[in-house]
Amino acid sequence: MPENLSMGAVSQTQKLAGTTVFAISGAAIGVKYRLDVFGVCVLAFVAGNAGGMLRDVMLGATPPAALSGWQHITVSLVAALLTFLWHPRLERLRTPILLFDAAGLGLFAVSGTEKALAFGLDPLVAAILGMVTGIGGGMLRDLLVNEIPTVLHGALYAVAALAGAAVVVAGHVLDLPPTVPTMIGGAVLCFSIRLVSIRRGWSLPTADRIERHLPKQR
Amino acid sequence: MPENLSMGAVSQTQKLAGTTVFAISGAAIGVKYRLDVFGVCVLAFVAGNAGGMLRDVMLGATPPAALSGWQHITVSLVAALLTFLWHPRLERLRTPILLFDAAGLGLFAVSGTEKALAFGLDPLVAAILGMVTGIGGGMLRDLLVNEIPTVLHGALYAVAALAGAAVVVAGHVLDLPPTVPTMIGGAVLCFSIRLVSIRRGWSLPTADRIERHLPKQR
Amino acid sequence: MPENLSMGAVSQTQKLAGTTVFAISGAAIGVKYRLDVFGVCVLAFVAGNAGGMLRDVMLGATPPAALSGWQHITVSLVAALLTFLWHPRLERLRTPILLFDAAGLGLFAVSGTEKALAFGLDPLVAAILGMVTGIGGGMLRDLLVNEIPTVLHGALYAVAALAGAAVVVAGHVLDLPPTVPTMIGGAVLCFSIRLVSIRRGWSLPTADRIERHLPKQR
Repeated sequence: MPENLSMGAVSQTQKLAGTTVFAISGAAIGVKYRLDVFGVCVLAFVAGNAGGMLRDVMLGATPPAALSGWQHITVSLVAALLTFLWHPRLERLRTPILLFDAAGLGLFAVSGTEKALAFGLDPLVAAILGMVTGIGGGMLRDLLVNEIPTVLHGALYAVAALAGAAVVVAGHVLDLPPTVPTMIGGAVLCFSIRLVSIRRGWSLPTADRIERHLPKQR
Repeated sequence: MPENLSMGAVSQTQKLAGTTVFAISGAAIGVKYRLDVFGVCVLAFVAGNAGGMLRDVMLGATPPAALSGWQHITVSLVAALLTFLWHPRLERLRTPILLFDAAGLGLFAVSGTEKALAFGLDPLVAAILGMVTGIGGGMLRDLLVNEIPTVLHGALYAVAALAGAAVVVAGHVLDLPPTVPTMIGGAVLCFSIRLVSIRRGWSLPTADRIERHLPKQR
Repeated sequence: MPENLSMGAVSQTQKLAGTTVFAISGAAIGVKYRLDVFGVCVLAFVAGNAGGMLRDVMLGATPPAALSGWQHITVSLVAALLTFLWHPRLERLRTPILLFDAAGLGLFAVSGTEKALAFGLDPLVAAILGMVTGIGGGMLRDLLVNEIPTVLHGALYAVAALAGAAVVVAGHVLDLPPTVPTMIGGAVLCFSIRLVSIRRGWSLPTADRIERHLPKQR
């Protein structure tokens, strides 16, 4: 089926694009922490691929997609080396990188959910695994440089991923016809939440902030 | 077999109870580190489930039990949200939480060992995997907030888990009849060691403490 | 085939030797961070085995070799306990330990690559997994005591592993006859690079060091 074939090619290209943007974010953090060129490559690969690899290990889909060919590694290394050499210019690229990162997040969340559903997982679990596909790489990237993962205490990053995943799950539960429209819808929703939350500086509440609005407990 | 069925239901209930207590410990640490509500949920899920997930990935039992239905995630999230909202009252619940945590540890260690034996692993390895089921969630919980896992430098936590696991392994090696009595025995032993060691403030030696009792080496 | 049998026995002995040396490095770091005796054992096991376990989980080869018998755990624990008791004397053993560590690295990199190729992975991916076999244990060891993994910012450790892995991959791609000569060649190359780089104090560049040699970017 040529349509499926071209869909597959588009999807593969999109995933490699997502990997690239995430890899740049990993490499930039590696440079910031003064890792050597090898360390920068590791952080780039981890940021770009660890989320999907974690999902695949959980699904028992081994070897993970990121290791089933040379493409993901190569793309990550190229992104790492370019970032390593050109990082002072990355500052100027901040806005496009944020845009691409939001797009990558939507794409990863949606395709991860889709894959988990295809493996027969419960819809709630599939949405969580979709979110993990989107945020897992960044979490491990932060752990490797000894930071508490930013996704645990900042902004609506994970919520955006979860919203995108929820759209795919909803389409699946409602038995909507093929996946492309719901996948696009989910990715766009994730992308939009992310951008709006960056613009408006939205963040999730912490427990101490909530407390101030509550009557004293003791 | 109705007896097995009810055993299965009891065991499932117990596991979810163990997950709940561990999830509360994770959420409490998330609150302490001022994570946002999403971060608190992640720490709760990790603390309640990562040990068993690590065991299942090692066994090749994918998807891990914690992801094979909506129950573990739901229970973890409810525990997280309640802790998030009510955490000032948790202080008063310290003793019951310590008790439940000790019970959860015994249960996880024993059921993890049982599962590893059922997968045909060597008895020594099965005991280790049982212990990992009990302590793995807490270790990853601590790593996520940039702490050296407390289990590596405090108290007899892991030893209690290992003792419980050893009872199950002994029953298996001695070919004792079905597993229920040895499992209960192992869980009770783990629970008891844990409680006594908390009461008496027992801890394992560190190398520098041992040195003081040795003749000078140089 | 007796020849294969004895090769297998030699290879198993070598792997346990590699595990031992890496376990000593893990235990020594555990002692340095004042972990208790259990924590020292965990660090020893992790340093000696986590690289190969990560590789095996990625390959879907579960349970990982380190858990498919009592040997790896036992060897790691013995190394941990001896280090725990005798660590002041380890200082005097620094040179032999560095030598053994370099040998272990070469051995792990080469055997990990070989295993990944046997599972049909792409040559580039196989080399990466070989390297991961060599460096993964040390990375997790460092993370457990809250350090940025030394391999990310120091010396030519990973590069040596990768060079050894590359020899095995080259032999495979060129369809050279059986694996023993290329494996020995790869291990020797890794060992040599490691020793020379220690002697000469070689290290990989970081981005800020490169910048100084570039014209100002802004």
